[in-house]
Amino acid sequence: MDSVTCDLTISLDGYLAGPNQSPENPLGEGGEDLHRWMFEEPDANAAEIAGILSSGAYIMGRNMYAGPGPGPWAKDWRGWWGEDPPYHAPVFVLTHHPRPPLQMQGGTTFHFVADGIGSALDQAREAAAGKDVAVAGGAETVRQFLSAGLIDELRLHIAPILLGAGERLLDGVQNFNVEPTYVSGTRLVTHVHYRSIR
Amino acid sequence: MDSVTCDLTISLDGYLAGPNQSPENPLGEGGEDLHRWMFEEPDANAAEIAGILSSGAYIMGRNMYAGPGPGPWAKDWRGWWGEDPPYHAPVFVLTHHPRPPLQMQGGTTFHFVADGIGSALDQAREAAAGKDVAVAGGAETVRQFLSAGLIDELRLHIAPILLGAGERLLDGVQNFNVEPTYVSGTRLVTHVHYRSIR
Repeated sequence: MDSVTCDLTISLDGYLAGPNQSPENPLGEGGEDLHRWMFEEPDANAAEIAGILSSGAYIMGRNMYAGPGPGPWAKDWRGWWGEDPPYHAPVFVLTHHPRPPLQMQGGTTFHFVADGIGSALDQAREAAAGKDVAVAGGAETVRQFLSAGLIDELRLHIAPILLGAGERLLDGVQNFNVEPTYVSGTRLVTHVHYRSIR
Repeated sequence: MDSVTCDLTISLDGYLAGPNQSPENPLGEGGEDLHRWMFEEPDANAAEIAGILSSGAYIMGRNMYAGPGPGPWAKDWRGWWGEDPPYHAPVFVLTHHPRPPLQMQGGTTFHFVADGIGSALDQAREAAAGKDVAVAGGAETVRQFLSAGLIDELRLHIAPILLGAGERLLDGVQNFNVEPTYVSGTRLVTHVHYRSIR
């Protein structure tokens, strides 16, 4: 496909996570309910889940790599994704602290990029070898890519819940010019795909 | 149908209107773009538009009746909907200042209700004579009805734009328990119907 995609699950009031995120509760209060559609309705949502996992390379911010809370960004921290992360592909981590790549089990290798989102995208495109590149998160990373006009397809998965507080995805995004191209849903989620029309 | 419905067009970042609302610009900066789907794609969105206009009675807050800005809520103000408002049905206006009903052209009569949303709903149900009652807005009125669990079907029309600031519909809503039952859309809007599951 060769597109830059971004899949994110948000609440109906626009939050990626609830309030009071912590190492014990990384999605914040109520945040677990955002993802019920993946775990309770995997068959009904199979196409969307497949889309999330089909990219040739991923880009993420350091917080998404390192996990929430203070401390984990130590020199020998191997991320919070476990020894066999779900990506099974190269993952480019935006950071101010370059370090050697970290090869995990199952085909995931974390690469650390200290020279900005453009460089990360270039490296991810090359690694993806013609498949999509996915911007995996978190919110600040997605906002940077959206504002730079670098995301071709934003796929929002809108959970029918209110979180009331926490981190909002779209606050402060600039240059947002999209149109919806696809919509579907179940009782736990509404999928809307937005294509960039810059 | 005998349901209590609420149709609202919001931006993808959750705003009903943009910043800096004024009498000259009642929808705020950028707010006009919210409603492009109605005016530019009336045929493609005919079913949703018909749903908005099919109720037997309407309820609105005083600001939605009176219009934005200071001043218009004078004793002899006849609202800002003109002499032939688009409702063609009884409209119950929440206010602290009761006054006699105001009969307009085309079947719209404004009734002024000073004893709360429950009373307004009772009166609107009776006037609707078996048809739906629609809570027309504005945001604060909708929040009151949502938090009180009085809206059976919330129909959101999500425009693919960011307003960045203004009045957010869902901030502060309590007791929000819904599930999506219907989704459709065009390039200018995504329609999602949410049913109350209290």
